[in-house]
Amino acid sequence: MPESPIRKLVPYAEAAIKKGRIIYQLNIGQPDIKTPSNALAAVKNNDIDVLSYSHSAGFESYREKLAQYYTNHDIKVSSNDLIITTGGSEALLFTMGSIADAGDEVIIPEPFYANYNGFATSSGVTVVPVKSKIEDGFALPPISEFEDLITPRTKAILICNPGNPTGYLYTQEEIQQLAEIVKKHDLFLVADEVYREFAYEGAKHYSVMSIPGLEEHAIMIDSVSKRYSMCGARIGCLASKNKQVMATAMKFAQARLSPPTFAQIASEAALDTPQSYFDEVIEEYSSRRNTLIAGLEGIEGVKVAKPMGAFYCIAQLPIDDAEDFAKWLLESFQLNNETVMVAPAAGFYSTPNTGLNQVRIAYVLKEEDLLRSIEILKVALKEYKA
Amino acid sequence: MPESPIRKLVPYAEAAIKKGRIIYQLNIGQPDIKTPSNALAAVKNNDIDVLSYSHSAGFESYREKLAQYYTNHDIKVSSNDLIITTGGSEALLFTMGSIADAGDEVIIPEPFYANYNGFATSSGVTVVPVKSKIEDGFALPPISEFEDLITPRTKAILICNPGNPTGYLYTQEEIQQLAEIVKKHDLFLVADEVYREFAYEGAKHYSVMSIPGLEEHAIMIDSVSKRYSMCGARIGCLASKNKQVMATAMKFAQARLSPPTFAQIASEAALDTPQSYFDEVIEEYSSRRNTLIAGLEGIEGVKVAKPMGAFYCIAQLPIDDAEDFAKWLLESFQLNNETVMVAPAAGFYSTPNTGLNQVRIAYVLKEEDLLRSIEILKVALKEYKA
Repeated sequence: MPESPIRKLVPYAEAAIKKGRIIYQLNIGQPDIKTPSNALAAVKNNDIDVLSYSHSAGFESYREKLAQYYTNHDIKVSSNDLIITTGGSEALLFTMGSIADAGDEVIIPEPFYANYNGFATSSGVTVVPVKSKIEDGFALPPISEFEDLITPRTKAILICNPGNPTGYLYTQEEIQQLAEIVKKHDLFLVADEVYREFAYEGAKHYSVMSIPGLEEHAIMIDSVSKRYSMCGARIGCLASKNKQVMATAMKFAQARLSPPTFAQIASEAALDTPQSYFDEVIEEYSSRRNTLIAGLEGIEGVKVAKPMGAFYCIAQLPIDDAEDFAKWLLESFQLNNETVMVAPAAGFYSTPNTGLNQVRIAYVLKEEDLLRSIEILKVALKEYKA
Repeated sequence: MPESPIRKLVPYAEAAIKKGRIIYQLNIGQPDIKTPSNALAAVKNNDIDVLSYSHSAGFESYREKLAQYYTNHDIKVSSNDLIITTGGSEALLFTMGSIADAGDEVIIPEPFYANYNGFATSSGVTVVPVKSKIEDGFALPPISEFEDLITPRTKAILICNPGNPTGYLYTQEEIQQLAEIVKKHDLFLVADEVYREFAYEGAKHYSVMSIPGLEEHAIMIDSVSKRYSMCGARIGCLASKNKQVMATAMKFAQARLSPPTFAQIASEAALDTPQSYFDEVIEEYSSRRNTLIAGLEGIEGVKVAKPMGAFYCIAQLPIDDAEDFAKWLLESFQLNNETVMVAPAAGFYSTPNTGLNQVRIAYVLKEEDLLRSIEILKVALKEYKA
């Protein structure tokens, strides 16, 4: 099992905290946003006396309501097209297990969410990276580059949209291009759409589930973690119109019995969250994003791919070794006893020695902390280079 | 992915229910026992406002309290020897992934909990069965039979103690024998001990974690599901003193981020459940067991291996094909519009065409329902044979 790049620095952070250092954690995607009160209240008001297994595919009532939610978002599914999972993580694991045998390949644009490596390893699947570039803002690489990588063992193309760690939001045209290539080569198009709601400047998210004619090829991964700031619930969803994929995934679901009950109660109730909640949240993130990007662009030598979605960005720093810099920030640097923690981006690339001068920054902190973080980063870069 | 034997009959049961049939479900291990009120109350009284990820190994507070619980049960572990998982299921999955590569082998006495097949398939591990017999009450097969099966690819022996589906409780001597063989061949001894508390007639449970000198070889799988009738929580635990195993398992844990938060709150509180709760529960199961076994033994041609633990037994029926009989019970039989659902035992054997005339019966129903179930079974067997 490969180690997650955001975990590597944890011992350094722990040591820094022991020294009394205050750390601004820009390295992880744990939002500080409040969970909708209706979701929390539903759990408090439960009337369970025997906490029994639920259906392996999740509560029928939840799946029906969730199907309605998707339908309202241009994703026309019924409850039978959904399996409720223990986080998006389990949906990915079930997907890999259902579409690929050991030794099969999945093509993923890099940089990508590092835990894809873990799920691939667990399933014996080989990750084949196709490089997206900071110079292009991490847009979809040319389709010819995907085609060059397709072998008889290729089973799927996996994208994260909007992207973690890039924040890139695929255009309708790009999704359409991917749809054509998977149909042409009879592959699956797996889309991790857990950040669907987080799109900025009025940009629209296009789901792989909304493409006519792609029904047999499209698999969507979803989660309540970010949408409702319910990362600790551990509720996700696997959605597909492909009956064979769903039947196989259901066997994985049955082997692990059921998704967690309390968390399903919270997730079902969360579907009643008023639009005003999302409006406020998106406005908050949008404003954080603007602050962060402007701040980073204001530091000499720093290049940023402006994210149109999610709440991450990749920043290229005027240094050679971002991992060494990230460690140094925790071990040796402080500005009024404060420092920042960033995720070295190399761990998000599958190709060795790539993205060595890049870091992933999550804008999950309030603006005042982001401003302070930028200031710290600016001083730190100057001191590190000297 | 293999299909779970307890799922195969679900469509028949659904059809029977549609016809208005009342079904006594002896096929699944879903207890009707109430969850401890303190566990449920802790969830209701939570003061969460951001439902964030927890530590990938589970709450530190829970692990510390759980280590104390184990220590009180002759299992001397510290919180560092524990990883909280999403059910015992995930603990098994992490274990397989941590100790074996694709193509490696795990020896398991059969009949065994059918989902072991699913976790093995997910991890690319080959299950090698060693037969335990109803004539021996499903006692540990002779050690020589294990030795005959050990190859360079054998990584572990996996037992369920007390056993699902047999109810067999291994003696101290048997556990000691297993300890010797795994040490001799440098294997792991993985014990699924989720039914630890369910031991009858004063019999004592011996954990693989209590054997001196076995520290580097012993891995324990645990769960709150049965102990506290909290199957829907989805909280389990992986325990081992082997630091390398735990470090690898921790990478699997980090890839899926964290176990469910609400369920951890319930599980931590459940540790304060008074002994009187368990005394009552065990007395109830003990009494159900006696009723069931006496009833089954009273049916002509039925043979039962008397279970000393858990809440299952394997019964051999005077028929040739238990799967056909189980289907027939749902499709074609009724006694005052009632019938029973049993799990054909063949699905718990890895060796083909084994246990064809056996069923697994779970005694998770109240005695009055068990008595009625036995009556139905008796009449059904007579009618089926005629």
